[in-house]
Amino acid sequence: MKRTKATAKEKFAHIRVAFQGELGAFSQQAIRQFLGPKAEPVPQERFDLMFAALERGDVDAAAVPIENTLHGSVHANYDLLLKYDFAITAETSVRIVHNLIAPPGMTFRQVRTVFSHEVALNQCLDFFARYPRIRREPFYDTAGSVKMVMAERPEGGAAIASELAAQIYGGNILKRGIEDDRQNYTRFFLLEPAGSPARTPPRPARKPSNASVWKTSLVFSTRNIPGALFRALSALALRDLNLVKIESRPLRGKPWEYLFYLDLIGRPDEEAVHNALGHLREVADFLRVLGSYRAA
Amino acid sequence: MKRTKATAKEKFAHIRVAFQGELGAFSQQAIRQFLGPKAEPVPQERFDLMFAALERGDVDAAAVPIENTLHGSVHANYDLLLKYDFAITAETSVRIVHNLIAPPGMTFRQVRTVFSHEVALNQCLDFFARYPRIRREPFYDTAGSVKMVMAERPEGGAAIASELAAQIYGGNILKRGIEDDRQNYTRFFLLEPAGSPARTPPRPARKPSNASVWKTSLVFSTRNIPGALFRALSALALRDLNLVKIESRPLRGKPWEYLFYLDLIGRPDEEAVHNALGHLREVADFLRVLGSYRAA
Repeated sequence: MKRTKATAKEKFAHIRVAFQGELGAFSQQAIRQFLGPKAEPVPQERFDLMFAALERGDVDAAAVPIENTLHGSVHANYDLLLKYDFAITAETSVRIVHNLIAPPGMTFRQVRTVFSHEVALNQCLDFFARYPRIRREPFYDTAGSVKMVMAERPEGGAAIASELAAQIYGGNILKRGIEDDRQNYTRFFLLEPAGSPARTPPRPARKPSNASVWKTSLVFSTRNIPGALFRALSALALRDLNLVKIESRPLRGKPWEYLFYLDLIGRPDEEAVHNALGHLREVADFLRVLGSYRAA
Repeated sequence: MKRTKATAKEKFAHIRVAFQGELGAFSQQAIRQFLGPKAEPVPQERFDLMFAALERGDVDAAAVPIENTLHGSVHANYDLLLKYDFAITAETSVRIVHNLIAPPGMTFRQVRTVFSHEVALNQCLDFFARYPRIRREPFYDTAGSVKMVMAERPEGGAAIASELAAQIYGGNILKRGIEDDRQNYTRFFLLEPAGSPARTPPRPARKPSNASVWKTSLVFSTRNIPGALFRALSALALRDLNLVKIESRPLRGKPWEYLFYLDLIGRPDEEAVHNALGHLREVADFLRVLGSYRAA
């Protein structure tokens, strides 16, 4: 008999997972996608505090936004990945759907002011253009704006946030999906202490389907010589490995030199990837594998 | 007889150059390095407004910060480079030196609160650790914080900003170079309308020195196939061209696909660069040369 997903997830019910933001943040949705609804989300005010909580062992894992299809990479988190020595054990992609949320009983016609994080407000410009009577008011957090309108009930006040935030704080969704661009996704990494026994669902047994596509993430720096990046990428290309993301970050202490973060398709225990990593080690000044995980 | 630099610069005295921030910003220092002290700096509140001012012809050029050695690329400006069709005609690098500035007559021992942009405050942590009696107060702009302490004279209030800001607003430098990391540089591009006769100093005649090193900046997207980036970079590597910077940005409307911004050493009128651009055009979906300029 096939074991159901739910059974596997129950095993991980007591995992505590740090995320940045208030309860109801899109990061909490990522935690649900990673580990089911029973994993305990642990809010943190800033990204660096989320990493520090995992380092101290206050939490078992962290759900870290790494890139968004409209805004690009979350560079602060790339830098923190290098600063700490955690392993990326999973990735997931959350569709960013913005909803207009108000206290129960309030109608759409009564809405006068909409609170939300500035980024979310700026992703709903068509909505605000259509309803010029509605004023935008920047707030520090999307989910936090729902919490506030529910607690303080400002006259004509509503919020823009996730459906999860509406559920958590008892808000009523007046309009769903008011974002301008539906191709708005955020990709998250699940981080766990490196070397510790993985607390997340283990690798599935061999499956010949798409579910068995794996990614490996790594970071390296090259020697400062012409063609260095090309040589590094040749370690992958000569083995027909598919590079799906490259991100550069400044190298501290060496002005105008860079670190490169790569995601490739494959697992280090596959021969081509194993050999590519060996080759890359030869041509790079520094190399670290950040993790290997099933592609979302 | 050799024409002096000053003579060349006088020719450009009436150039109006947009920059982001208040008078005295590090961007104004970049304008001086580009065009001498007589070019007129035109402050703009935001990066997008600086580009819009150039588009309307309100200014002749714009000085755009593109990367910092500690914080990495200014991604918003990479995106704006693509949105508008300007040419990069020069680059320069400004050493970021933070100074403690107060109204004349005030002594260091009287300083109780220091105002500045949060990024600047966070770059002077050693200073604040050494003087725990001094409180940090985030302000919207570095130069703006000098303007404010000079105008409002808050009790015990000083600011952190550039030497230029101290000069402009008549502030007194109490301590010079209080930044933690001296390898703090920001690289700027000078942008001018594409196709218009260059208003900036023209190319120097052939010089066999380092002064004749040129860079070319371009942006391209690859087809979404394995090895696409490697193939694109091979157009450079096979011609021994030196890639000095690569930056990726999300491609709007195509989740998880990317645009790449490259800087290479060379000029499009050199044979190797000309051929590399032709080769790149073959393998890229899209390619635009953003400009060619003397390396700083």
